[in-house]
Amino acid sequence: MYEQLTKYILDTIPVNDNELASILSYFQPLKSKKNELLINHGQSSQRMFFVENGCLRIFFIQEDGQDITRYLAFEKNFATALVSFISQEPSLEFIQALEDTELLSISRRDFHHLLETVPLWEKFYRHYLEHAYVTNTNRLMSFITMDAVERYRILLRESPLIIQRLPNKIVASYLNISQETLSRIKSRI
Amino acid sequence: MYEQLTKYILDTIPVNDNELASILSYFQPLKSKKNELLINHGQSSQRMFFVENGCLRIFFIQEDGQDITRYLAFEKNFATALVSFISQEPSLEFIQALEDTELLSISRRDFHHLLETVPLWEKFYRHYLEHAYVTNTNRLMSFITMDAVERYRILLRESPLIIQRLPNKIVASYLNISQETLSRIKSRI
Repeated sequence: MYEQLTKYILDTIPVNDNELASILSYFQPLKSKKNELLINHGQSSQRMFFVENGCLRIFFIQEDGQDITRYLAFEKNFATALVSFISQEPSLEFIQALEDTELLSISRRDFHHLLETVPLWEKFYRHYLEHAYVTNTNRLMSFITMDAVERYRILLRESPLIIQRLPNKIVASYLNISQETLSRIKSRI
Repeated sequence: MYEQLTKYILDTIPVNDNELASILSYFQPLKSKKNELLINHGQSSQRMFFVENGCLRIFFIQEDGQDITRYLAFEKNFATALVSFISQEPSLEFIQALEDTELLSISRRDFHHLLETVPLWEKFYRHYLEHAYVTNTNRLMSFITMDAVERYRILLRESPLIIQRLPNKIVASYLNISQETLSRIKSRI
């Protein structure tokens, strides 16, 4: 059960067996049903999730009531409502399971305990934050600086799994376009 | 000259005198003339800047050719084109001095040397990354989820210095609206 997480950690930081065992001991298994919300808008983010099987979607609601999908986490990825995880302010984001999903979850308190007690965990978190900053900035800037066709081309090139595995409704929300526009773009490309 | 930077570092991490001296030794003074570009779109980001006096603007160009100001760093703040500083890909962002500006600058190589040799510098960078993630995500999401009036009200409440100290052209670019729209909003509020 902890195989994928173990590999993920060892690929990032050179912890020894004791440190690894200590880190893993803070992660608990959690099953989430399709469509279940793990964090609701307005709650504060108290857990970090690692996806073993399934898919998590992080989204927020635009001024016009449309939802925009900010991030999709498939197997072997971490996810949380990170702004709230850092600031402890109420989250603007929702986290939802898109499929029946198996997770490993660590509480924010235990995560910070690891930062104090395992020096390499600080390095692990650095890599996580750097990756999150780059991914999130590029995503949000793509909404501001690119048109829909350009966003679709990039998605097709960099994350074809999203188009192959998820329903059109989610793909459209990931691109921040209507399903009709998505169909039009697909028929032209 | 290093007083403000010293205070900033000591407010963030409890380094001893030797560690502090070692950290400061990697920062070099740099003067930048009004309107000078410190990083151009397409360059990779090799330096982190601390503003002693003056103001740096980080901006990018939208699809329609308009520039959007993502971040403004006044005195006692760090700034860099962070996506490129992390990824070493060419920067989508420009950094420009808005006034004659006095900076302290550290190279990316020395910054990473400190990460390897001063354990508390890892903690310093963690705080920097967390702050950058929260600030930048909230900024970019405000462009997507809020209308111009709402963005102006928040700016007036949270960063009045921007409105008081900088020309309308920059304020409009920070809000991602035209100068005409800014004038209209100002006359109504």
